[in-house]
Amino acid sequence: MSRDLRARNIVSRIRELASISEEEGCITRRYGTAAAVRAGEKVLEWMQGAGLQTRVDAIGNIRGVWPSGQEGVRTLVIASHIDTVVNAGSWDGPLGVLMGLDLLEHIIRQGRRLPFHIELIAFCDEEGVRFHTTYLGSKVVAGCFDAATLDKRDEAGLSLREAIDRAGGDAGSLAKEAIRPDDWLGYFEIHIEQGPVLYEKKIPVAPVKAIAGQVRVEILFKGMAGHAGTVPMDMRRDALCGAAEFVLAAEKLAGTADSGLLATVGKLQITHAASNVIPGEVICSVDIRSADMRILADGHERLKALCQAIADQRGLEMQWKVVQQSPAVICDAGMTASLSRSIEKSGYEVVELVSGAGHDAVAVSVVSPVCMLFVRCYKGISHHPDEDVETEDLAAALVVADEFIHQLSEIWKYPH
Amino acid sequence: MSRDLRARNIVSRIRELASISEEEGCITRRYGTAAAVRAGEKVLEWMQGAGLQTRVDAIGNIRGVWPSGQEGVRTLVIASHIDTVVNAGSWDGPLGVLMGLDLLEHIIRQGRRLPFHIELIAFCDEEGVRFHTTYLGSKVVAGCFDAATLDKRDEAGLSLREAIDRAGGDAGSLAKEAIRPDDWLGYFEIHIEQGPVLYEKKIPVAPVKAIAGQVRVEILFKGMAGHAGTVPMDMRRDALCGAAEFVLAAEKLAGTADSGLLATVGKLQITHAASNVIPGEVICSVDIRSADMRILADGHERLKALCQAIADQRGLEMQWKVVQQSPAVICDAGMTASLSRSIEKSGYEVVELVSGAGHDAVAVSVVSPVCMLFVRCYKGISHHPDEDVETEDLAAALVVADEFIHQLSEIWKYPH
Repeated sequence: MSRDLRARNIVSRIRELASISEEEGCITRRYGTAAAVRAGEKVLEWMQGAGLQTRVDAIGNIRGVWPSGQEGVRTLVIASHIDTVVNAGSWDGPLGVLMGLDLLEHIIRQGRRLPFHIELIAFCDEEGVRFHTTYLGSKVVAGCFDAATLDKRDEAGLSLREAIDRAGGDAGSLAKEAIRPDDWLGYFEIHIEQGPVLYEKKIPVAPVKAIAGQVRVEILFKGMAGHAGTVPMDMRRDALCGAAEFVLAAEKLAGTADSGLLATVGKLQITHAASNVIPGEVICSVDIRSADMRILADGHERLKALCQAIADQRGLEMQWKVVQQSPAVICDAGMTASLSRSIEKSGYEVVELVSGAGHDAVAVSVVSPVCMLFVRCYKGISHHPDEDVETEDLAAALVVADEFIHQLSEIWKYPH
Repeated sequence: MSRDLRARNIVSRIRELASISEEEGCITRRYGTAAAVRAGEKVLEWMQGAGLQTRVDAIGNIRGVWPSGQEGVRTLVIASHIDTVVNAGSWDGPLGVLMGLDLLEHIIRQGRRLPFHIELIAFCDEEGVRFHTTYLGSKVVAGCFDAATLDKRDEAGLSLREAIDRAGGDAGSLAKEAIRPDDWLGYFEIHIEQGPVLYEKKIPVAPVKAIAGQVRVEILFKGMAGHAGTVPMDMRRDALCGAAEFVLAAEKLAGTADSGLLATVGKLQITHAASNVIPGEVICSVDIRSADMRILADGHERLKALCQAIADQRGLEMQWKVVQQSPAVICDAGMTASLSRSIEKSGYEVVELVSGAGHDAVAVSVVSPVCMLFVRCYKGISHHPDEDVETEDLAAALVVADEFIHQLSEIWKYPH
């Protein structure tokens, strides 16, 4: 079967999966909902059709194994997720699952047996929209699921424990679903870039060298509210002006440092806002990321100092509260080198990317070497109905991934 | 009766009025509510006790006349309002009504008859909280009430027409309640400053030379939303960064122009805000004020041009929508000169203020000369439970106002 035909087949499956949604007219599949369960059943059916040894695990991951021809060998996990954000695109997650399925179908059609098992997994929760927690599916498989998470509740007040059971799972059996640390050969995930770099550089695919570490801060500026008509400009302590100065300082620091530092103020709220009231209090967020933990820590410190200086100079109170922190994940050098060689051999330029977004690979990296292949997406748009991928780019990704599996087979031909 | 005693008496009445509220534990009296009606009855009782010719008019203003000794003379209106914002202070409005009542009691105690009638009015709606429209009471008295306003509805869906009737008024008879244009001698309102200038300058009272004109604008910045982790800093079109630049530009323009221009961004909202999303759209307000209409128009044009330049430079779309405009009101030169002389004669420095906040005087200025006396308030705090006035400052205001009425009597002794 030609790679073009395989690519078109992947697109048609992605379209079919996209038609399964909590709501008509958009794509929404949050963990444990009827739509998410139906999507899982569809993927299970496809895995069965391909001849994999399939099952749905206790949290709702859809899993299909293509066993090696040999005994006592390790497992390469190929995976991504099939849950989505609210009003999502079709590609974020499903691309990796359905590319993986196609890679296995290709191997099976050729009657090849590999020197390792391959387990294809469609993770049930990566976005974490419903329970405000990410990587539920991959944490179970990696054996790092925190049982305390089971008490988290969704907006309707249902606990994760209850949601697992209602979706047909078994909250009491999650620990048994982990792949043992010694059994991992590695983890391979194909995902859309979710950013504009490949689109701007006109390159179809890229290896991911690292997933950025992140610090998320909540900042409070406290000044003095007042009447917009009665307080002279030079007597004001306007909390919004302080916050605005910080927004621009963060933009400037990240923009001028030639360092791969990103800083984004995504939320900003004025307490008791009214058009005729001088803002007395502003709460805003800042999201700081870098693949280099030293640069991340340094950027964090510098932003905090800038923020304090702005507040001091304006006579504002300032509070800086770190609300989330995740370390950078460095992708496995060996696997990523194989992936780069596969790209080069396929005739494409190798541009190593840093993933600014988190992925299931972050959870898996605790127990296994991980590597990721990014596929160019239209204008870098993601988490949006306009999310799109060219069929040609899928074909390019197939050439690269076929070669990558081949290279791993060569490497693992002899016992490690 | 000493002015100290009179001042303490005013404070005790203001406290009593403050105890009448829609809700216990705070002061809230929106137009037409049971609390507002009860407050009106209390003021009516005090006016009756003073010996005025009292009535409640068709919209609910409480009115008390102290007739002149002469026939066919004009009327000096002394007024302010007794409705409040939600969770208000005790002084904004009631001060002017109860100072006016005391001035009349003082005249009556002395058995003086003046060469003009004095009508004391407690306006029923200045804040406009319930129907999102200001000066309902004073517009009726000035004869500039727009009948279309009667169809406005409160949050519960009740129309103003129904609310007037339920509060015991008569929506069909509002036009009859106007004081005829020829009958006005002038309008005098005592009010807390609602700003920090007198507090900072350590002066108890000041004449108001003008009430600022105002332009209120709603601004839309449209950029491109994106993932905070995946879009490089130099590929962003961040709507919040544009808005932040405008916030600072507005602060700087108003702050450096030595011109009495005020500019305040009081509202700012990010559409679909999330800490990990680059803001794609921001809507904010800007409130621009000046007592000089030329400076106001110029400031408005310059801010619009600055905003457009910021948007252009950042590749953002920008929309500038004027949502409210009110012209400046110049207080009557003659009356204000009398007021300034009275302040000077009472031994205080004369610092003419511009009122940045609107007042009933704005509505009345359509038919009558207006003048206002501002009284220092604690730290300039207003529309807040902490709103406060020193009893000494009330005594100072009484000295000035007694002298002002005396001066008007001298001026109007001979037929105009």
